[in-house]
Amino acid sequence: MSEPHEPDKSGGLTRRHLLWGGAAAAGVGAAGAAGIASITGAPPAVAPPGTPDAGAIDAAFTPQPAFDDAVPFYGEHQAGIATPAQAHGLFISLDLRPEVDVGALRRLMRVLTDDAARLTAGHPALADSEPELAIIPAQLTVTFGFGSRIVERAGKDMPGWLRPLPAFGIDKLDSAYCGGDLLLQIGANDPLTVAHAARMLLKDARSFTVPRWTQSGFRRAAGAENPATTMRNLFGQFDGSSNPKPGTAEFDQTVWSTDVPAWLLGGTSFVLRRIAMDLDGWDKIDRLGREETIGRTLDTGAPLTGTVETDVPDLEAKDRLGFAVIPAFAHVRRSREGASGTKMYRRGYNYDDAVLSGDPSVSNSGLLFATFQADVDLQFVPVQRALDSLDLVNTWTTPVGSAVFAVPPGCEKGSYIGDTLF
Amino acid sequence: MSEPHEPDKSGGLTRRHLLWGGAAAAGVGAAGAAGIASITGAPPAVAPPGTPDAGAIDAAFTPQPAFDDAVPFYGEHQAGIATPAQAHGLFISLDLRPEVDVGALRRLMRVLTDDAARLTAGHPALADSEPELAIIPAQLTVTFGFGSRIVERAGKDMPGWLRPLPAFGIDKLDSAYCGGDLLLQIGANDPLTVAHAARMLLKDARSFTVPRWTQSGFRRAAGAENPATTMRNLFGQFDGSSNPKPGTAEFDQTVWSTDVPAWLLGGTSFVLRRIAMDLDGWDKIDRLGREETIGRTLDTGAPLTGTVETDVPDLEAKDRLGFAVIPAFAHVRRSREGASGTKMYRRGYNYDDAVLSGDPSVSNSGLLFATFQADVDLQFVPVQRALDSLDLVNTWTTPVGSAVFAVPPGCEKGSYIGDTLF
Ligand code: HEM
Ligand code: HEM
Repeated sequence: MSEPHEPDKSGGLTRRHLLWGGAAAAGVGAAGAAGIASITGAPPAVAPPGTPDAGAIDAAFTPQPAFDDAVPFYGEHQAGIATPAQAHGLFISLDLRPEVDVGALRRLMRVLTDDAARLTAGHPALADSEPELAIIPAQLTVTFGFGSRIVERAGKDMPGWLRPLPAFGIDKLDSAYCGGDLLLQIGANDPLTVAHAARMLLKDARSFTVPRWTQSGFRRAAGAENPATTMRNLFGQFDGSSNPKPGTAEFDQTVWSTDVPAWLLGGTSFVLRRIAMDLDGWDKIDRLGREETIGRTLDTGAPLTGTVETDVPDLEAKDRLGFAVIPAFAHVRRSREGASGTKMYRRGYNYDDAVLSGDPSVSNSGLLFATFQADVDLQFVPVQRALDSLDLVNTWTTPVGSAVFAVPPGCEKGSYIGDTLF
Repeated sequence: MSEPHEPDKSGGLTRRHLLWGGAAAAGVGAAGAAGIASITGAPPAVAPPGTPDAGAIDAAFTPQPAFDDAVPFYGEHQAGIATPAQAHGLFISLDLRPEVDVGALRRLMRVLTDDAARLTAGHPALADSEPELAIIPAQLTVTFGFGSRIVERAGKDMPGWLRPLPAFGIDKLDSAYCGGDLLLQIGANDPLTVAHAARMLLKDARSFTVPRWTQSGFRRAAGAENPATTMRNLFGQFDGSSNPKPGTAEFDQTVWSTDVPAWLLGGTSFVLRRIAMDLDGWDKIDRLGREETIGRTLDTGAPLTGTVETDVPDLEAKDRLGFAVIPAFAHVRRSREGASGTKMYRRGYNYDDAVLSGDPSVSNSGLLFATFQADVDLQFVPVQRALDSLDLVNTWTTPVGSAVFAVPPGCEKGSYIGDTLF
C-alpha cells in the first residue's frame, strides 16, 4: 500500500500531485494551505468555522486536491455541497425506529459524525471491521440531511418547505424512492471507499434506523476529464453549465440558509428527484431536435444563441423568420423563466441500473437530480412547476422518486452534525 | 475536453503519462511500442495476430497505459482477459431469440465486433446516438463469451465443459443470475464509458437477443493504488495474490485453449459465480480468526507461513505444538489441495447493491467471482468441489449465481469475434 505514495522517480513529487497536471504539480504547498491533507501525512487540520471547504475554491485558479486525497470534514458548512462532485455518489435514506428520542438522536449523530470525520480523513472508523478499506479517502465526503420527523422529535422550528414536494402532473412516483427521516449523501472518487464508508455508517446507525432506500450514481471517473468540466448526463448533454460556481457570492446566496429557523443557519436544503430517462425515445430524435429541446448544443453546451458554454442564453433572440432561437418549449427557457430570481445548485449523478425483467428497453437509466438551495419553496418548486406545465424534456423523462431534507450546518471538531438542533 | 491532454507545465509530458508515476513518465515511447494509443492521437494501430494484448505486459517492468487510454481490440486473444482489471466491470448475459440462426449469429457478431472495436478505441459506434460519451476509452474492453446454444446453432463441436457447473452443496442459486447464451464482459476505468458502451452494444443486439441478467462490480478506482497491487474484496482481503501473472508462460498455459475444439484455439473459458458475502457474520470474528480462515494475513496478504504477499504458502509448516500453521479448513490450503495442477485465473469484482427491503443486514454485498481457464472441468470444478466439502470461508459466503461461457479467440481487423465458429 505504500508504493503509490512514494516519491516519483522523475522529480520528487508524489504521483498524486501530478494527477491533475501543472497547477497541482506546482502547487503542493498551496494545496496544503488550502486545507488539503495528504493521506501520507497527518489527518487534515481542523478548519475553523468560516473557512471555505475544499470545494469553495475556484477550480480555474487554485490547485485541486489529488483525486485520492482527503477533503476537510469540519467547518462552517458540511462538506459534499461546495465540494467538486466526486465520481461516485451514494444516497441513502433511513427511517427512525419508533423509540428514538432526542437523546438517542444526539447519540446517533455523535457516532455518525465521528465515523464521517475519521473516514473522510482516510482513517478507519472506531472499531472499523475492515480498516484496510479505509485508507484511500479519494475525496470522500459524508453529508447528512434531516427529514421533518427529526425536527419534530427535536421539538424545534420546522422550515416551511420541509415536507414532500407538491404533486406534479409529470410525476409517476414510486414510494420505494421517496421520503425518509435521515439522509446520508456519500461521495468519493473510488467506489470501494464509498462502499466501505456506507457500511461503517449503516452499522452504527442500525440500532436507531432502518434503511428506506439507496440510490447509487456516477459521473466521469476522476481525472478522465478536466475537473472543471461540466458533467455529461446519459442523454449526452452537458448538465450543470449554468450552475452557480462554488466560491462565489452567487453560490453562497443560492445555497446557504441565512433566515429562520436559527438551527439551520449555515445549512441548506436538499432535494433528490429520481428521474427516469427514456433513452430509446431520445435516440429517435435528431441532433437538431435534441438541441432545441434544451436550448443548448450537444458538442460544446453553448446556448443556441451563443458560441461557448459560459455564454448566457438570450431568451429574446429571434431567427430570420422571427421565431425565438431558444424555443418556447426549451428546457433552458422554461427553467430560467420559472425561476423566481435565486437559482438552485444542481449536483446530480447519472444512474444506469440493471434492466427490470420484462422491460422491452435495454436501459434502466436516468438522473439522480440532486439540488441544494437555501429555500425549497422559493428556489425549487417554482421551477419544477414551470417545467411541469411545459418542457419538451418531459417527453423523455419521468420523475419516479422524490425526497426533501434539511441539511444542517457543519460543526467544529469535538462537536457533531446536528448540534444546533438537539 | 482538450485541457486534460495538454502538455503539463512541468515537463512537456501529458498529464496522462504521469498518472502512474516514473515508469510511465519515462516510457512514453515504449508505451507506443506496446500498442497503447492515446486518445489525442490516431486510433490504435491494429495489433497483428500474435501480438500480446496490453495486459500481457508485466506491470512491474514495463510502462502501463494511462488510465484513460485505449486498449487494442484486435489480436490473437480477446482483450479483457490478460488486460489489467479495470475499476468497473459489467457482466451482461443475453438469451438468443428463437429465430436466430447461424446466419443471424454471424450478422450479430459482425455488428457487435465493429461496435466494440470502435468504442474501445475511443470512437463513437456506427450511428452512435450519444457520440460525446464515446471519447474517453478509459481502457475499455469488451469480451464476448458463447453459451452452449450458440455452439449448437453453429453446428460445431461442443467443449465438454460448456454446460452448467455441477450442483454443489453450498449453492443457493437464483435463476435470475444463472446461465445465458451470449456474455458481454465490459470493463473500463470510467463508469460513464461502461454505461455508454453497454447501451450501444445492447441496442445492436436487441433484435437478436433478450437480456437475461446484468451484474455490475468494482475495484479500486484507477490510480488510487499502484496498478500492480492486488485488489481487496469487501472482507478486506487481498484477492488474487497467487494468480498467474499475465505475460508469463504460466498465465498462457492456464488460460489459453490449445486443445479441441479447433474453433476455440487461442480462446478460453469463463466462469462467473455470484457469491454473496455475509459481512455481518464476518464482522463478528476477530483478525486472527479471519486470517486463519484464509491462511493469509490481512495487512500484507502474506501467507501465515511467510512475510510478503508473493511468498508461496507452505502447507507443511507446523507450529510449536505440531499443528499446521495454515489450518486444515483454510481457504488457501483447500483451494491449493483441490487444484489438479493447472490453476485458474481469477479476475473478479466486488459488488455492493442496494439492500433488499426487509433484509435485516445493512449490506447486499459480495464477489462477482470471475475466472478464465483453458478447461473448466480440469481447472475449476475440482477446486470448487474441494471447497464445497470443506472451507471455512463457506460459513460467510453463498454462491447465488453461476454461469459458464466459451470465450472464442480474438480476431483480425476486417473479421469478427466468432469467425472461427460461424
Ligand atoms: C432528466 C431530467 C433533466 C435533464 C435531462 C435536464 C437537463 C438539463 C440541461 C442539459 C441543461 C442545460 C445545461 C445546464 O445549465 O445545466 C439544464 C439546465 C437546467 N435545468 Fe435541467 N434537466 C432535467 C431536469 C430538471 C429539473 C427537474 C429541474 C428543476 C426542477 C431542472 C432545472 C434546471 C435549471 C434551473 C437549469 C439551468 C437553466 C439556466 O439557468 O440556464 N432540470 N437541464
Ligand atoms: C466470496 C468467496 C471467496 C473469497 C472471499 C475468496 C478469497 C480468497 C482469498 C483472500 C485468497 C487468498 C489470496 C489470493 O491468492 O487471492 C483466495 C485464494 C484462492 N481462491 Fe478464493 N475466495 C472465494 C471464493 C473462491 C472460489 C469459489 C474459488 C474456486 C472455485 C476460489 C479459488 C481460489 C484459489 C484457486 C485461490 C488461490 C490459492 C493459491 O494458489 O494459493 N476462491 N481466495
